[in-house]
Amino acid sequence: MRDIPEDFQLGAVEAGFRYANRPDLVLIYSLRPARAAGIFTTNVFKAAPVQVARKNLGSSSRFRAVLINAGQANACTGDEGLEDCRGTLQMAAGLLNVSAGEILPASTGVIGSRMPMHVWSEKLPLLKQALGQTGSIEAARGIMTTDKFPKTSSRELELERGKIRFLGMAKGAGMICPNMATMLAFIISDVEISGDLWSELLVKAVGDSFNAITVDGDTSTNDCVLALANGASEAGPGSREEEEKVGRALEDICRDLAYQIVCDAEGGTKVMHIRVTGAKNRVEAEVAARAVGNSCLVKTAMFGGDPNWGRIVAALGRSSADFDPLGVRLSLAGHEIFSGGRPAEMDIDRVVAPGMKSKDIRVEIDLGAGQGTYTLLASDLSEEYIRINADYRS
Amino acid sequence: MRDIPEDFQLGAVEAGFRYANRPDLVLIYSLRPARAAGIFTTNVFKAAPVQVARKNLGSSSRFRAVLINAGQANACTGDEGLEDCRGTLQMAAGLLNVSAGEILPASTGVIGSRMPMHVWSEKLPLLKQALGQTGSIEAARGIMTTDKFPKTSSRELELERGKIRFLGMAKGAGMICPNMATMLAFIISDVEISGDLWSELLVKAVGDSFNAITVDGDTSTNDCVLALANGASEAGPGSREEEEKVGRALEDICRDLAYQIVCDAEGGTKVMHIRVTGAKNRVEAEVAARAVGNSCLVKTAMFGGDPNWGRIVAALGRSSADFDPLGVRLSLAGHEIFSGGRPAEMDIDRVVAPGMKSKDIRVEIDLGAGQGTYTLLASDLSEEYIRINADYRS
Repeated sequence: MRDIPEDFQLGAVEAGFRYANRPDLVLIYSLRPARAAGIFTTNVFKAAPVQVARKNLGSSSRFRAVLINAGQANACTGDEGLEDCRGTLQMAAGLLNVSAGEILPASTGVIGSRMPMHVWSEKLPLLKQALGQTGSIEAARGIMTTDKFPKTSSRELELERGKIRFLGMAKGAGMICPNMATMLAFIISDVEISGDLWSELLVKAVGDSFNAITVDGDTSTNDCVLALANGASEAGPGSREEEEKVGRALEDICRDLAYQIVCDAEGGTKVMHIRVTGAKNRVEAEVAARAVGNSCLVKTAMFGGDPNWGRIVAALGRSSADFDPLGVRLSLAGHEIFSGGRPAEMDIDRVVAPGMKSKDIRVEIDLGAGQGTYTLLASDLSEEYIRINADYRS
Repeated sequence: MRDIPEDFQLGAVEAGFRYANRPDLVLIYSLRPARAAGIFTTNVFKAAPVQVARKNLGSSSRFRAVLINAGQANACTGDEGLEDCRGTLQMAAGLLNVSAGEILPASTGVIGSRMPMHVWSEKLPLLKQALGQTGSIEAARGIMTTDKFPKTSSRELELERGKIRFLGMAKGAGMICPNMATMLAFIISDVEISGDLWSELLVKAVGDSFNAITVDGDTSTNDCVLALANGASEAGPGSREEEEKVGRALEDICRDLAYQIVCDAEGGTKVMHIRVTGAKNRVEAEVAARAVGNSCLVKTAMFGGDPNWGRIVAALGRSSADFDPLGVRLSLAGHEIFSGGRPAEMDIDRVVAPGMKSKDIRVEIDLGAGQGTYTLLASDLSEEYIRINADYRS
């Protein structure tokens, strides 16, 4: 438990919502009131836990716990789903002797089914008993759905006033695209910090990490990132410089977790690091990067280890980003492969193809039209993705 | 050859650009000057034949031929590619005794390789000899790439002044998304018609057909629809009513070919007919339909025969179309499955799942926000798509 920040406890139990022989009900508990910040899906259909967590975040400034289940999303379940969600918080609040408004809920899994409330009432007491006996890996395992491995990331930081610690965990493998990526992430820290600054640092950290990855271009109904800071270290940033240091640690954790999510993409075998430079502005750079990263044809070529630059160029060309086709330069796996409207004169299959066997593949695109840049992490697309998703529910 | 309009001849030969034991070089020839209309890819990287065809369409009003090759796209080949394209037209013009500006070129296949000009000079004389001896199916076979079957469609129409005939052929299976769909289509008719009206009718016909299908959301560098009308029937529309009749025939052919393209989607097993109604306007209806039709998760669920309405709802929710989530109604395979923010109370697997085995699946979405409508045809996504595209080039 050495990676868990001070005065936080984790708990995880097997409730059997959907999965067997693994935890699927997780509690993050702070022994003292914590600041909380949250970022949620932009999907119009927001799951019940997303609605409740947003409301709680708006009406309280101190929080004690995050309650998470995997296997059922409690999305598109109407008013009954909202009632169910509130019911689980009330049960947990009674057991923990805190108020329900101090708990933030999160769910992930299949859309549309009602929560089995009798399971919750049976399992929550066991979850309370497990508090303090669950490690971070085990808790991260408890929030997985189609993930193949649990995702955690931790940092320690020395500030003037003392040492602070961060622990993050995330889940996500499919339905991954930003605003938000389809995922849950939880970050806890014992840093002493104001709620406003904590929120500000989280928003910044998420922009270039969780919001800059894509697996399949789909955005879920349940995404959220929740961050708790309970001040137990009695150390906080004492200067603008230390604030930035804390912000960087938070961003490091988010980037690390975001990278792990793309590594664990459903059926994924490779991670494209798509770097667009020379766009008119950042928005256009992002548009171009996403056209490439979400192209099924580019993704399948990556899966096949095929340096098929034509598909990358075609995706850029339809992206709606504004540039002169003759001004574009494209490098693949470290080799400039296209510029001036035509391919480089080399034996692509001999020079570039070997580098396509790596797990991490750099795709560098200079649009030659300005100063805008953007970096996107994207997975490839394999037969395994189809197998996973063609029989996920039925 | 009975389906070929008067005074048109088709020719096809095996040039071996990429494929063996099948034609891959095709000529559509009109014995008399014809009106021509064309619609081209919006991709910024336009292939050499697209650039040349656009230029020829702008500088002449009478055309004699369309020259098409499959296997090489002649895209992203720089000025040399443009020279190559012009060279092929000059050779063909010499053999046919017409001017190069009266011929429209089209290519489809792998991006980035130069045309083998010696093959063209060897095969074009044989192509001329084949004129008049090639049927429509054989010509349609000659323009295929990853297509599994040749796509043709024909119509006859009685006008006051006589009978007119239409023949269309198309190719396309992958990199299919509108503006344009990644495809080639050629329509010939012996109708007597002005160039302006012919163009106007073509633009209208393409909007609700080729531009309303998607396989993988990618748009190619080579898409084009070319239509020739040579007036050989000496019959043309004599009234506003007959103009509409001709337009409907053209649209019927385009819809028929567009449907065939989605049926032949790479690895496709099903065709989703996504009908969005009740959107604020047509643009929003299209945005919503495309979010559903391009979602990998919806496509894989269709492939698996899984009535996974949650993924459809999630795609709508992230589409950016403006609506109240509680006002949405969704029907799948003829059954209302979601409304008022929650699923219908029925045994979905018993009631809806059997209908998911059909080849054609209706997805009807009422956003409840206005009068805008849009219909999109979309393929499913199977392991076969991955297999085809992971080793298309290498």
